[in-house]
Amino acid sequence: MDPVASLPDQDWVDALSDVPGVELVTWDMEDAPPRDDIALAVPPYMRAGRRQLGHLQQCPQLRAVQLVTAGYEHVQPHLPEGVQLANGAGIHDTSTAELAVALALASLRGIPEATRAGEQGRWTSLNGRRSLADRHVLILGYGSIGTAIARRLQPFEVSLTAVASRARAGDELVDTIHGTDELPDLLPHHDVVIVVVPLSEATRRMVDADFLHALPDGALVVNVARGGVVDTDALVRECAAGRLTAALDVTDPEPLPDGHPVWTTPGMLVTPHVGGATTAFVPRALDFLRRELTRFGKGEDLSHVVATG
Amino acid sequence: MDPVASLPDQDWVDALSDVPGVELVTWDMEDAPPRDDIALAVPPYMRAGRRQLGHLQQCPQLRAVQLVTAGYEHVQPHLPEGVQLANGAGIHDTSTAELAVALALASLRGIPEATRAGEQGRWTSLNGRRSLADRHVLILGYGSIGTAIARRLQPFEVSLTAVASRARAGDELVDTIHGTDELPDLLPHHDVVIVVVPLSEATRRMVDADFLHALPDGALVVNVARGGVVDTDALVRECAAGRLTAALDVTDPEPLPDGHPVWTTPGMLVTPHVGGATTAFVPRALDFLRRELTRFGKGEDLSHVVATG
Repeated sequence: MDPVASLPDQDWVDALSDVPGVELVTWDMEDAPPRDDIALAVPPYMRAGRRQLGHLQQCPQLRAVQLVTAGYEHVQPHLPEGVQLANGAGIHDTSTAELAVALALASLRGIPEATRAGEQGRWTSLNGRRSLADRHVLILGYGSIGTAIARRLQPFEVSLTAVASRARAGDELVDTIHGTDELPDLLPHHDVVIVVVPLSEATRRMVDADFLHALPDGALVVNVARGGVVDTDALVRECAAGRLTAALDVTDPEPLPDGHPVWTTPGMLVTPHVGGATTAFVPRALDFLRRELTRFGKGEDLSHVVATG
Repeated sequence: MDPVASLPDQDWVDALSDVPGVELVTWDMEDAPPRDDIALAVPPYMRAGRRQLGHLQQCPQLRAVQLVTAGYEHVQPHLPEGVQLANGAGIHDTSTAELAVALALASLRGIPEATRAGEQGRWTSLNGRRSLADRHVLILGYGSIGTAIARRLQPFEVSLTAVASRARAGDELVDTIHGTDELPDLLPHHDVVIVVVPLSEATRRMVDADFLHALPDGALVVNVARGGVVDTDALVRECAAGRLTAALDVTDPEPLPDGHPVWTTPGMLVTPHVGGATTAFVPRALDFLRRELTRFGKGEDLSHVVATG
């Protein structure tokens, strides 16, 4: 008999019904499992809280949980003993990399200023603004999203510098990948920094007052990682002084409370953590699940196991 | 003796002083020419009106006028008899193509909405918006700027359709280049249209009510060409009905007057004709002038002669 896998949405079950070797059932985890033989569970996207995840304990035959998010910390405490946890590595690369480029372009070319002038019905001058072309762009964090950002930036006539936790050889996009220990030498020569490192004890507040101080006048900081990677107060100070600009999809605190200075500081653009949540998600999630369910149906391990309960 | 060429800016004369075979002088055309042997004149960028161009009549040895803009219609009436006029083909491709992508990304990903919410200090939801990824993008006008746009869009996981005045073979970016006669068949299958055709009698109001009606619900129209290519009233009607969205760097009328409905229609983003006017301009203008002055110094024709007085 084929093992049973649960998906959070009937549409997904329909779309993947031809995957061989697994039996699919719909379970959004709002209530107890619809049957007791679920072997693999895919929790709902952005709607899996403590209560929903608690229902995993009622699946006696559960062998694995497959997420469609990259982050998995919120699931670990609810993982039944011996159950594997796999994350959705790569599903959000497209959408997040695209937003990073959108934020850089919008900030440099003055889309927020044009929007505000338009609100007042004013034809304002934006001549002489910086193009993305000719910028020296540093991508901080060079995993799959960082690479996807570099691929999108390459035709824009920029120079690209990639930085990862440790130096390593380059790829088809950059000659070399620098280590974070080289940042003090690199930062003064870059006028756009795109932050896309995962949040960890090593990266918390990595973009602090000293980091920002090392950037040249007029530099732009784009954050599509996690708010905690950046010292918000230090960034506000540099932007309020007119020395730096910033475009942030993530903030610390998040959501930004009413009256927070980020809202009113000139040169700061904020989108409300929408890096991954676009129409790009579903087709890529389904392609990903098709591959992983096929593996599971054959009795193979999931590709992106990140923890075991 | 080397022929004399005038440049509008002392910095440009300094930057190009090593070009062999020509003698450079600074002349911003605000006053009469500084000497009577100018053989080639480069008018100032965006500051060459009727009065400035009238001074060309006071250059008895003038053989050519070299512009740093693509448009040249404003200069033709002032061209002395027998003098060649060359345009600045390609100088603005980088900056304009970049803005076209910026407008598409900003509109799709909700940068104007995020800016307006930020003005009110609101963390708004923008989940579920369309990504640029998976869009079917039609580039209307496939000259050097259209090609530059296609090159920048290619890594964004879009499908690209190129349309020019006549069908011809494809290039490394698109399999084929369609003719405008195929538009009725093509438009219903495209959800982003980027307009970059030159304004002519053939293209005036090409994007009219029928054109817009043929687009699917939710399609985005980006205009970086000239305002007159689009029927503004028809576009406003489609956007006001919530059926289409638009991102415009050029408008008709331009500048948009106070109280024009484009300012207040939902889904319409306007930048104030800033396609070319960025920091990308000067280095590319200097590279271009270096090539053309070198030709002139050797007695060769300018590369982009568009008219003779």
